[in-house]
Amino acid sequence: MTEHLVYPYERVDDLQRKGYRIIQNPDWFCFGMDAVLLSAFAAVKPGETVLDMGTGTGVIPILMEARTKGSHFTGLEIQKPVADMALRSVHLNQLEEKVSIVNGDIKEASSIFGRASFDIVTCNPPYMDNQHGLQNPSAPKAIARHEVLCTFEDVAREASACLRPGGRFYLVHRPRRLMDLLTILRSFHLEPKRMRFVHPFVDREANMVLIEAFRGGGVQMHIEPPLVVYQDVNIYTDEVKRLYYTDSEN
Amino acid sequence: MTEHLVYPYERVDDLQRKGYRIIQNPDWFCFGMDAVLLSAFAAVKPGETVLDMGTGTGVIPILMEARTKGSHFTGLEIQKPVADMALRSVHLNQLEEKVSIVNGDIKEASSIFGRASFDIVTCNPPYMDNQHGLQNPSAPKAIARHEVLCTFEDVAREASACLRPGGRFYLVHRPRRLMDLLTILRSFHLEPKRMRFVHPFVDREANMVLIEAFRGGGVQMHIEPPLVVYQDVNIYTDEVKRLYYTDSEN
Repeated sequence: MTEHLVYPYERVDDLQRKGYRIIQNPDWFCFGMDAVLLSAFAAVKPGETVLDMGTGTGVIPILMEARTKGSHFTGLEIQKPVADMALRSVHLNQLEEKVSIVNGDIKEASSIFGRASFDIVTCNPPYMDNQHGLQNPSAPKAIARHEVLCTFEDVAREASACLRPGGRFYLVHRPRRLMDLLTILRSFHLEPKRMRFVHPFVDREANMVLIEAFRGGGVQMHIEPPLVVYQDVNIYTDEVKRLYYTDSEN
Repeated sequence: MTEHLVYPYERVDDLQRKGYRIIQNPDWFCFGMDAVLLSAFAAVKPGETVLDMGTGTGVIPILMEARTKGSHFTGLEIQKPVADMALRSVHLNQLEEKVSIVNGDIKEASSIFGRASFDIVTCNPPYMDNQHGLQNPSAPKAIARHEVLCTFEDVAREASACLRPGGRFYLVHRPRRLMDLLTILRSFHLEPKRMRFVHPFVDREANMVLIEAFRGGGVQMHIEPPLVVYQDVNIYTDEVKRLYYTDSEN
């Protein structure tokens, strides 16, 4: 191959797991703590197959491959240049046999992959439902952060369709939209089963929520211990340090 | 009055606020931490009127009278002897002008008091939706703990009907039924707005949830900092000590 693996305007970051690295373009977006927390929250069992909807850099499937014994991980990304970059990260880590990147639209996920085709679906969706004042709705950053190309209804509908009965959907979102998220999940037969709230400090409101939903019903809700990010200004708690810097706990 | 104020089989406990005391019958039930937490979670503003549905000993209106500047507090209790006991606690604390106890059924609350007649409704409802194996469904303890006489739908419907538009409903419940609670609240135009999860220890699942719902809609959800009960075995956290033992913070 004569193709460039990393372009000069890109950067390569160490994922601190199994020596894996990730290619990012700072002009588009870089993955955040939400992706790291989601990849750790998703309880992938040995042999399970995983679809990450809206995978961006591919960080979530690559981190899950490092952490779990899942059999295969697929990342779906609508933006062609972003999907290409994610694929180059797969090559960089020689993960071609475990991780696939597909260029396509979340809204068509169940047509692309077939119904009931995954054990697990993950998604770190755009958080913003208000597109007011977006200067450039076609920019990669806007697409990653705002519901420009798909709504949460689209995400939930396709996650539900792609999951086998009894499969699980894992997502990270903002608590302020929690009622809508839960209502929409339930309307697509994704029964919220486990939630973990992420608080920047132990005495502050949650600013993220991790949700596990079960494809089916009849489950009880569990609220996990709070995930606290900082124990002091600029000092991560031990748990967050472990999530970022320790190799697989599985 | 020649009536007994306290019977020999009853006990009188100090509420640690304003010198108030409460009469309880240990053979029936005694109020728990959930009632104390709910009375502190309910944000009653000066001059507001409050209805506590299923008031039991009357501990919630009496504690709220101590903590807040609400103008009037009404406790509704279906069991005549329990309502009588609550009324004797009102007399014991000379709160006749601020606290009323009404003997009646939650299911008829909006008929008893009229629609849109309160600024605030509170409820510490029965948690158990499974009446299987109840030895004595007419016992006061069973009525307080199991949905023998009313379901959560009844509670939410009547809370909604009793509240003025923009009024607030405060409740405490178990997280395992959270999805049903939130769905039912929303179906009666009580939009969940603020939640606080109560964890026995900081690294344990939540075993209680405090919910504020807004009569109306269009609100965003806030997840408050976790309320942690114990900092060590048998040692309350400072926050819980303050909730139990400090006089009014309002």
